[in-house]
Amino acid sequence: MGERLDVWIPDDTPERFRGRLDDLAAVHDYPTRGAPKRRLGRGDMLIAAHHVRSTLLAIPQIDGLRVVQTFSAGVDTLVDQLPPGMTLCNATGVHDVGVAEWIVLAILASNRHLLRHAGLQRAATWSRQRFSGEDLDGATVLIVGYGSIGNAVETRLRPFGARISRVARTARDGVSALDELPDLASDADVVICLLPLTPTTRGAIGRDVIGRMKPGALLVNASRGAVVDTDALVEASAAGRIRAALDVTDPEPLPEDHPLWSTPGVLITPHIAGDVRREEDRAWELVADQVTRLSRGQPLRNIVTDGY
Amino acid sequence: MGERLDVWIPDDTPERFRGRLDDLAAVHDYPTRGAPKRRLGRGDMLIAAHHVRSTLLAIPQIDGLRVVQTFSAGVDTLVDQLPPGMTLCNATGVHDVGVAEWIVLAILASNRHLLRHAGLQRAATWSRQRFSGEDLDGATVLIVGYGSIGNAVETRLRPFGARISRVARTARDGVSALDELPDLASDADVVICLLPLTPTTRGAIGRDVIGRMKPGALLVNASRGAVVDTDALVEASAAGRIRAALDVTDPEPLPEDHPLWSTPGVLITPHIAGDVRREEDRAWELVADQVTRLSRGQPLRNIVTDGY
Repeated sequence: MGERLDVWIPDDTPERFRGRLDDLAAVHDYPTRGAPKRRLGRGDMLIAAHHVRSTLLAIPQIDGLRVVQTFSAGVDTLVDQLPPGMTLCNATGVHDVGVAEWIVLAILASNRHLLRHAGLQRAATWSRQRFSGEDLDGATVLIVGYGSIGNAVETRLRPFGARISRVARTARDGVSALDELPDLASDADVVICLLPLTPTTRGAIGRDVIGRMKPGALLVNASRGAVVDTDALVEASAAGRIRAALDVTDPEPLPEDHPLWSTPGVLITPHIAGDVRREEDRAWELVADQVTRLSRGQPLRNIVTDGY
Repeated sequence: MGERLDVWIPDDTPERFRGRLDDLAAVHDYPTRGAPKRRLGRGDMLIAAHHVRSTLLAIPQIDGLRVVQTFSAGVDTLVDQLPPGMTLCNATGVHDVGVAEWIVLAILASNRHLLRHAGLQRAATWSRQRFSGEDLDGATVLIVGYGSIGNAVETRLRPFGARISRVARTARDGVSALDELPDLASDADVVICLLPLTPTTRGAIGRDVIGRMKPGALLVNASRGAVVDTDALVEASAAGRIRAALDVTDPEPLPEDHPLWSTPGVLITPHIAGDVRREEDRAWELVADQVTRLSRGQPLRNIVTDGY
C-alpha cells in the first residue's frame, strides 16, 4: 500500500460502496443538498459521482484537491468549470455494457417496429397486419465517435452480420476522420452517434449528414443531444425520410410539446442508456482502482484531455 | 441440369419469385382461395409457402406428388395430415436471422423495461424515474430446443458475455436432454423456448419448470404457444415471479380479454418473430435449391422425420 489518501464522496453514497473504500483511504462526505456550511478540510480526490452542482460547490472548500472523478463518460457539464491544474477523470468503460446493450436494443426495436407492437399489446389486439422490417445481416452500421463504447457495440453487432464503419475525432487505422462523415453516412443503414459534446462536435450530425442518409435509415444517438442538429432531425423524421432512436435530446428534458415525442419512427428514452443495475458497482470498482493508483503514485485511468 | 420437374406454387406468389423458378422447372399455380375446381394435373413438388388449408385441398388433386415444402420451421399443422409416403420438408434456416434477432430484441426490451419507456414516450413524459434492469454480462441463458435458430441466438448472445446452456429432445455433446430441463431452468436468468410442438413437447415448459425458474427470470417463447403451460405462465407472471416475452401463445390469436395482454413484465408480439423483409427471399432461395436437388436426384434438405 502507498500513501493514505483523503477521498471525498457524496453524502448519499450507499453503505456498500462506502465500505469498499474504507480499507483504501480516509473517506469523507460532502453535502449533495446545498452548499457546504464551512470549509471541508483537506482532500486528494473527490468523487463527483452523478453530482455536478454539488461537486462545483464542494471543490473550493477542499484543500489540496488534485483529482475529480466523474461517473459519466461525457464531462461537458464539468470540464470548463474546474479550477486550473485539477485532473479530471471520466468513467470511460463503466457504461460500455449498458450503453452498448441499449444501442443494440434501439436498433432492433426500431427495425422491428416494437413501438407499434407495444401499441397493439396495450389495445389487446392480435394484429394480422405485418410490419416487416429489415434485418441486420449485411447491413452497414456507421459508428461515429468510435471509442470504448463503440468497440463494445461493434463486438455485439458483428455476429448479426453487420458491416461496421468507424469515424472518430482522431483518425487512425480502420477509423476515418470526422470530415469523411457525410460520405460514410450516405452508405449506412444505421448511424450511431457516440461523439462527446465539445465545441468541435456540436451539431456535427448536421443538416448535411442527415440529408445524405439513405431513405429509411436509422439515426441512433446515445451521447449528447446537441451533437445532432435537432431542427434537421425533426424535419427529416417528420417527413418519414429517416428513423431515429434517441436516448439524449436537445434540449433535455425534452419538453412535453416537442414534435419528436410523437413522430412515427422515432423512439425516445430519457437518458437511461447506461442505466443497468450493475453500473454503480462498475463505477465504484473504477474509484477503488483510481484511489489505489493515486496512493501508489501510478498513472490514473481516464484522464480527460483535449477538452474531453 | 437433371429431369425437368412439375412444381406447384400458390397462385398468390409474387412475380419476382415465380420468375426465379421458371428456369428450373415447369411451374404451375394452385388456388389459395377455395378448393381446386378440378384435378390439377401431375406434379413432383408442391410449395406450401404459408398456406396450410389450400395445400391440404390441392394435394389430392395432383398426380404423382412426392414432396411438400413448407415455409415454416414448425410443421405441427401439416405433419399429421399428409398422405402416407409424402416427403415433408420444412424451412429450417430460413427464419434463423429474423427469429434470432427477435429473441435478442425481446430479451433486451424486457430487461430494460422498454414497454414502460414506450408508455412514457406516448405520454410525452421525460421521466426522472429509473427502471434499472439487468445486463447480460455474465447472465445465464438456457436455450430449450437447441437447433439452427438456437445456434443463431447463441452466436449473437455470446459477445454480450452471456453464458449459454442448451437442451434438446436429442441429447448430444454440449446439449442436455429434456429431462434435465427443470434443473437447468433453476440456474437461468433467461429461458428461451424453441421447441417444436409435438406430442412429447406439448406443455414441456410446465408448472414444474416455471416453478423452478429464478425470481425475476425471463421466459422467452418463439416456437409454439402450447409448448408452455399457459395457466402456469399466467399465474407466475401475474404474481410478478417471472417475466415473459411471447411471440406465440396458446390459444392464438390471443383473445382480447386474456390476462397476459396486460400483465406487467409480459411482452407480446403476434407471431412475427421471423417477419423480416428478406425472409421471403430466403425461403424462395431454399425452394430453388430443393427443386435443383430433386431434379438431379440429390438428397433434399430439411426432411421432417420423427414427427418433425
